[in-house]
Amino acid sequence: MIKLVIDCMGGDNSPSVNIEGTLKALEELKDLHVILCGKEDQIAPLLEKYKYDKERVEILDAQDEITCHDSPVEAIATKKESSLVKSLMLLKKDDSVNGLVSIGSTGAIISGGIMKIGRIKGIKRPAFCPILPTMNGGIVGICDSGANVDCSPLFLHQFALMGSLYMERAYGISKPRVALLNIGLEEEKGDILRKETYPLLKEDTSINFVGNMESRDFLSGNYDLVVCDGFAGNVLIKSTEGACLEMLKLLKKTFYSSLKNKLGALILKKDIYKIKDQMDYNNYGGAVLLGVKKTIVKGHGNCKMKSIYHCVKLAYTIEKNNLLAAIEEAINKNELVEE
Amino acid sequence: MIKLVIDCMGGDNSPSVNIEGTLKALEELKDLHVILCGKEDQIAPLLEKYKYDKERVEILDAQDEITCHDSPVEAIATKKESSLVKSLMLLKKDDSVNGLVSIGSTGAIISGGIMKIGRIKGIKRPAFCPILPTMNGGIVGICDSGANVDCSPLFLHQFALMGSLYMERAYGISKPRVALLNIGLEEEKGDILRKETYPLLKEDTSINFVGNMESRDFLSGNYDLVVCDGFAGNVLIKSTEGACLEMLKLLKKTFYSSLKNKLGALILKKDIYKIKDQMDYNNYGGAVLLGVKKTIVKGHGNCKMKSIYHCVKLAYTIEKNNLLAAIEEAINKNELVEE
Repeated sequence: MIKLVIDCMGGDNSPSVNIEGTLKALEELKDLHVILCGKEDQIAPLLEKYKYDKERVEILDAQDEITCHDSPVEAIATKKESSLVKSLMLLKKDDSVNGLVSIGSTGAIISGGIMKIGRIKGIKRPAFCPILPTMNGGIVGICDSGANVDCSPLFLHQFALMGSLYMERAYGISKPRVALLNIGLEEEKGDILRKETYPLLKEDTSINFVGNMESRDFLSGNYDLVVCDGFAGNVLIKSTEGACLEMLKLLKKTFYSSLKNKLGALILKKDIYKIKDQMDYNNYGGAVLLGVKKTIVKGHGNCKMKSIYHCVKLAYTIEKNNLLAAIEEAINKNELVEE
Repeated sequence: MIKLVIDCMGGDNSPSVNIEGTLKALEELKDLHVILCGKEDQIAPLLEKYKYDKERVEILDAQDEITCHDSPVEAIATKKESSLVKSLMLLKKDDSVNGLVSIGSTGAIISGGIMKIGRIKGIKRPAFCPILPTMNGGIVGICDSGANVDCSPLFLHQFALMGSLYMERAYGISKPRVALLNIGLEEEKGDILRKETYPLLKEDTSINFVGNMESRDFLSGNYDLVVCDGFAGNVLIKSTEGACLEMLKLLKKTFYSSLKNKLGALILKKDIYKIKDQMDYNNYGGAVLLGVKKTIVKGHGNCKMKSIYHCVKLAYTIEKNNLLAAIEEAINKNELVEE
């Protein structure tokens, strides 16, 4: 049995999408149990609309909510009745609860995960690892994408180990191709951090290190995991998403700019939607906070039901495949504990 | 009179595009003089094809060439007969030569500019500043985009001052909106470098600092200059270019995927080309190495004639508008000399 607590608040369409997506996953995964955390007076009536296995669903009432306007660290410390803090406390105290899924404030989930759940033995810094769709229909993970802005080579080495195990156990990618984000392909390229990290990754035989990656090749499909500090990772992921969105916007504007273009767009519509669909994060699970003692998955705040469904499945898969134990073993076996 | 030395080698289509683009600029700018540097036996016959003012064109023979396969620093030190080194030496020694335009190896141009020409008084680190087209038809500059991977807050402050003056004097943008690349909009966001740079920019009344910018808004048109260290700048610019190119590739693939789509694409063709044209760097001048004692402009290595033409015009405009003197004055007035 895998038991997950679902933070049902904090998203643009919460709690309805949270509930719908969770129930869809519940139907598919027969040994999944869920605890829906949030405003019971909102959750209970919504639940009544669905047919589901009542034996495997509980509600944990939480009358407060953390929003994206709250300061993450402060909110975790003070909003004790919020759905996120109550979910985290349950996750911390109840050994039978394996993981948490939330679409609330990223900052609060990262801060809360680190503060309330704590790090796996040997882990210096937990890392936030989202995935992006690549242009050839695959995926690529980025570790870290924003949890740690100031990093040491040891942190990056640990990100590589955790991220590699994650891509393997969560997505079934055998020997994930791990690359170091850099400004050139040659070994000697980059700033001090990159120059000192490169040999650590190169010498570690437990990861399939394929060398440096330039950011222009991020979506190429040639890499499974990109290792970087949280500052560069955040720049990488947001500029890539930003550029893709701006291109789609420009395209849309072109399609509607004349009657002739509308006709052309109508013909292409189905296949253009396929591109949009390929780029849509709702088709993938969320990001994972790697290096904390329990599984924590974060979905986009404005995601749809389908995305929650994938997030729940992702947390379930991580637990089924014992990712956390594998991380603990790898980190301590590699003696990556001391600086 | 503005006198520029044009490195005619080092590009994919050199020296023919270099010559053609330069002559086009020469025709337009009546007080421009150029020295074409490169293999005379290649340049002279090409020149014969054109009608131009022979009084304003010289050739400086250079039989060697620096390629992108050369180590930049080593090549500058050893390839004394290369077109780039000979151009740089002329620029250094001849007071009447104002600037240099090259489409050769970026690394060699940056190293050569710093080593041979030297820094403007007070400048800690010269910065490489390219521009990108924004989605609303404007442009945005990035300073630094790769010359300095390890930076201090003072370096970034100087980049902001130089870049702001550059956007103003080269592109006529009054009070350029200067933003600090960061992982969030709030003042307290970011790593140590960003946290220490923010107050420097905020307090400097000589620049129009508009706060932090997230990388997803890079092409929005809301900013004129983005300030960052060279590592983050390189990640930003290459991931943005990479994502745009990948999207165009995906689109092209869709257009050719069926007969029906080909028809739709045919209807839209003209306007889709407009998007491609809007994103085409050939329509803009190249990047500039800011903070060295003479004007150095670098164009894309695989650029077309039109791009060289814009690069020559850019170098000319920079000199006409006394950018370098303005930088020297601003840096020393602001007492940004001491760390």
